[in-house]
Amino acid sequence: MAGIPEGITRVESIFSKFPGIGRKSARRIAFYLLNKDRDEIIQIAKALVDLKDKITHCPVCNHITEHIPCDLCANTKRDDSILCVVEDSMDVIALEKSVSFRGKYHVLGGLISPLDGVGPDDLAIDSLMQRLDKVKEIIIAINPSVEGDTTTFYLSRLLKKHPIKITRLARGIPVGGDLEYTDEATLARAIEGRIEIPNE
Amino acid sequence: MAGIPEGITRVESIFSKFPGIGRKSARRIAFYLLNKDRDEIIQIAKALVDLKDKITHCPVCNHITEHIPCDLCANTKRDDSILCVVEDSMDVIALEKSVSFRGKYHVLGGLISPLDGVGPDDLAIDSLMQRLDKVKEIIIAINPSVEGDTTTFYLSRLLKKHPIKITRLARGIPVGGDLEYTDEATLARAIEGRIEIPNE
Repeated sequence: MAGIPEGITRVESIFSKFPGIGRKSARRIAFYLLNKDRDEIIQIAKALVDLKDKITHCPVCNHITEHIPCDLCANTKRDDSILCVVEDSMDVIALEKSVSFRGKYHVLGGLISPLDGVGPDDLAIDSLMQRLDKVKEIIIAINPSVEGDTTTFYLSRLLKKHPIKITRLARGIPVGGDLEYTDEATLARAIEGRIEIPNE
Repeated sequence: MAGIPEGITRVESIFSKFPGIGRKSARRIAFYLLNKDRDEIIQIAKALVDLKDKITHCPVCNHITEHIPCDLCANTKRDDSILCVVEDSMDVIALEKSVSFRGKYHVLGGLISPLDGVGPDDLAIDSLMQRLDKVKEIIIAINPSVEGDTTTFYLSRLLKKHPIKITRLARGIPVGGDLEYTDEATLARAIEGRIEIPNE
């Protein structure tokens, strides 16, 4: 379109491909950046390249990190006997934010998905198998989906050979959730997994 | 927080300052970028720096451009006798998208705002005054707000000394808008500015 400098259009089309950003937000961002000092833009550009250059995967748990082993693996206060297996590093961060798990993690780096050509060999499953020595419990914390369920099934079958307790996260009504607005599948899971209220 | 590489936190905090992006979207974007090839990240970083380095303001109309004068000023097919005065370059782009104006633009680069210490001298008003030779009509296309109204008032008083017709954009119910959901002020403006339906 006439009247829009190419530089704006380019930045717009980059940002509109980012998750959660539409064309209009992308344009607002381009103008926001145009009003920044050059130094600030250089800092932003550098942070993006650093993201790629400095972050690697922990050879133990496969979580993203800037040093080896990662903070979580290096932390001797965390319980080595419980492993939480997750799809990706975002799940680790979400669980860490809940401050409810003090064991260690293992990041698969994806889910088994034959349609996308992702098999067990593409995931960090071998490295998981090599960590089982001290492990007494494995929590499979994988989102429920076709790929998630396939991966959970594959892992649980593989892990059955070892004397390890295998658990999954509870499903039910979220805290603050409302029965009325909860979908049927979640309600069914919540009833299935009901817990006795202890007599006091 | 432990478990999040600093590089991620840095990119997150950069993006969460962008307009329309919250903390969670910023994190998703950081992970999206982490999964990109290094080359692509370099391209993105370069586009941001280019944005700053290649884009300048047209000395005639003050619109952003990569060459001087800008496409809009250089276009001899556009009507020199009508000037549309806007707050910023985003307004030019919005009006250009409507394909309803074939005159030329003048970008003020802000609005008069005593509270923010922005006076008439901080805006491209002098350069506007130097463009009035061939101009027969000036459309003041500034958003209605305290600052917008102040600026419109200031400009119209300044322009009164010249034999130029001064107009503003019509206000009323947006196309596709619904009477029921239109706010009172807009309805009042729509009634005020009502237009006779011609007899055929």
